[in-house]
Amino acid sequence: MKKLINAVDSILSESLQGLEAIHGDILVLSEDEKFVRRKALTDGKVALISGGGSGHEPLHAGFVGLGMLDAACPGQVFTSPTPDQMLAALTAVETGAGSLFIVKNYEGDVMNFEMAAEMAEGKIATVVTDDDVAVPKSTWSTGRRGVAGTMIVEKMVGAAAEQRRDLNALKALGDEVNRRTRSMGVALTSCTVPAAGKPTFTLGDDEMEIGVGIHGEPGRRRVKLASADAIADEMMGAILDDLAPARGTPCLLLVNGFGGTPTMELYLMANAARRIMAGRGLAIARGLVGSYVTSLDMAGCSLTATALDDSLIQLWDAPVHTAALRWG
Amino acid sequence: MKKLINAVDSILSESLQGLEAIHGDILVLSEDEKFVRRKALTDGKVALISGGGSGHEPLHAGFVGLGMLDAACPGQVFTSPTPDQMLAALTAVETGAGSLFIVKNYEGDVMNFEMAAEMAEGKIATVVTDDDVAVPKSTWSTGRRGVAGTMIVEKMVGAAAEQRRDLNALKALGDEVNRRTRSMGVALTSCTVPAAGKPTFTLGDDEMEIGVGIHGEPGRRRVKLASADAIADEMMGAILDDLAPARGTPCLLLVNGFGGTPTMELYLMANAARRIMAGRGLAIARGLVGSYVTSLDMAGCSLTATALDDSLIQLWDAPVHTAALRWG
Repeated sequence: MKKLINAVDSILSESLQGLEAIHGDILVLSEDEKFVRRKALTDGKVALISGGGSGHEPLHAGFVGLGMLDAACPGQVFTSPTPDQMLAALTAVETGAGSLFIVKNYEGDVMNFEMAAEMAEGKIATVVTDDDVAVPKSTWSTGRRGVAGTMIVEKMVGAAAEQRRDLNALKALGDEVNRRTRSMGVALTSCTVPAAGKPTFTLGDDEMEIGVGIHGEPGRRRVKLASADAIADEMMGAILDDLAPARGTPCLLLVNGFGGTPTMELYLMANAARRIMAGRGLAIARGLVGSYVTSLDMAGCSLTATALDDSLIQLWDAPVHTAALRWG
Repeated sequence: MKKLINAVDSILSESLQGLEAIHGDILVLSEDEKFVRRKALTDGKVALISGGGSGHEPLHAGFVGLGMLDAACPGQVFTSPTPDQMLAALTAVETGAGSLFIVKNYEGDVMNFEMAAEMAEGKIATVVTDDDVAVPKSTWSTGRRGVAGTMIVEKMVGAAAEQRRDLNALKALGDEVNRRTRSMGVALTSCTVPAAGKPTFTLGDDEMEIGVGIHGEPGRRRVKLASADAIADEMMGAILDDLAPARGTPCLLLVNGFGGTPTMELYLMANAARRIMAGRGLAIARGLVGSYVTSLDMAGCSLTATALDDSLIQLWDAPVHTAALRWG
């Protein structure tokens, strides 16, 4: 295992401390390191809280800040955070307007956020994301997995929360963005979980895993490595078949690297995805290319498409100031 | 070789087309694909032009836009762009106030930008970056190599150009930022140049290359993989011994991934670097963590420190709107 680390046990803690050291103008790491929260809170705004296993950086802590999350609860690598983390985060950032949990659809995450919601006082709603069209259910989830589309939900709902929309409206918006969003991934190599010390799965030198999950969990099938166009065709084909946007629908395209994928290849995949979308009469109204929802050091990428409308474009364009996403 | 590509010959072209498809609001790819230029030019502003071999994305094309470059000339992977690319770019973006070339110190790049400067009409100055303290000269360069610090020069000079500083002032500023900037890198794995189809160099499962260059060229020595703290200590030690900033100097810390390095590890390295800087009485006034100056799929990172002052902090904080760096 080749990683830039000191000890397996302290990776998460040291990485979070680095995040705070670099982005101390935006966020604060709680003293017990249970959560990362926005430095400046806003009274009367619904608190947006997300979290999940770490190893997917910058998701979620890198999305804490103006226009996105109020707090993020990082679990150990590929391990759900605990309900007490979520409760501590909620207590720290709730300002009276209620809280919205944004949760990727994995059994551990869903269960722990549910427990936290039951234990907490105050109004709480939950949006569960399940944008991954690769498999109808998985080793980690009942139903579809929540993957890179989650950051799109966080961005849209985050922008709406800044407008002081209420909890019910934000819950409805989050569900709506999730319904309009589909993703699928491919792995060229496995990731290596630090505590395991060896690759999660093995792929031959000429193989890829189509439909891989963000923990390296199995996808649709293991096949010979194909061209970028063929890979994009299968992934974007599955996404668009399922999403079924009308011709002319403005789309958001997210090309997301899994951690070990060079930027040059991600833009090449963006070009491949664009051609496929154009063939179906779809234009990229907004695009984002980078490694945002990662799987440690896995090589590969996911494609995500969201069917936009004018109001969603406005929410996407709204100012955001986080460690990993910043504009406006 | 596992890469998301269609054919070795078309990687650069397809990746540039993807860049334009996603960031068409910011930049334009010239029809002959010789350069990427800013979509909207500003009369009376000195034109900033950079370029170099591709494989280091987002450098340089990802830094074209408001507050940074006016044009970037991408060569083939790890291959200098040609003088006619630079001339074409210059012709496209020069608006009468002269042009500044920002060039990493590699023999091919320096030679070709020099030839372009000789062939061109109008006022031209050149800043050559050589921030890499790892080796005093290398297989690719006479003198020190220009690496991740180049983007800091591009950011600072880009901000100053927006203020309409003249060519002489920008040349002086670029040289000054370069003098205040030092970098050093480490590789945990080799990169694989697509046309070669196999890793540029080989490292044992327990080895790293300290002081590696951004083309995978040799560094100081090949040693057993060490802890993040030990690696940061050697790299930041070399940087600060050479830069010799006075205690209390506000510093910019850039932790740059080489393309195959997860964000989680980069922030852990940022934390290690912070501790070493604190031990020398240096605070991180500004920080940036991400994969900005890459070496294809190489795993590893570089650390860069710039000794700031108030005016440089203002230039760093000034608005920037590019594919890879955006704020303000």
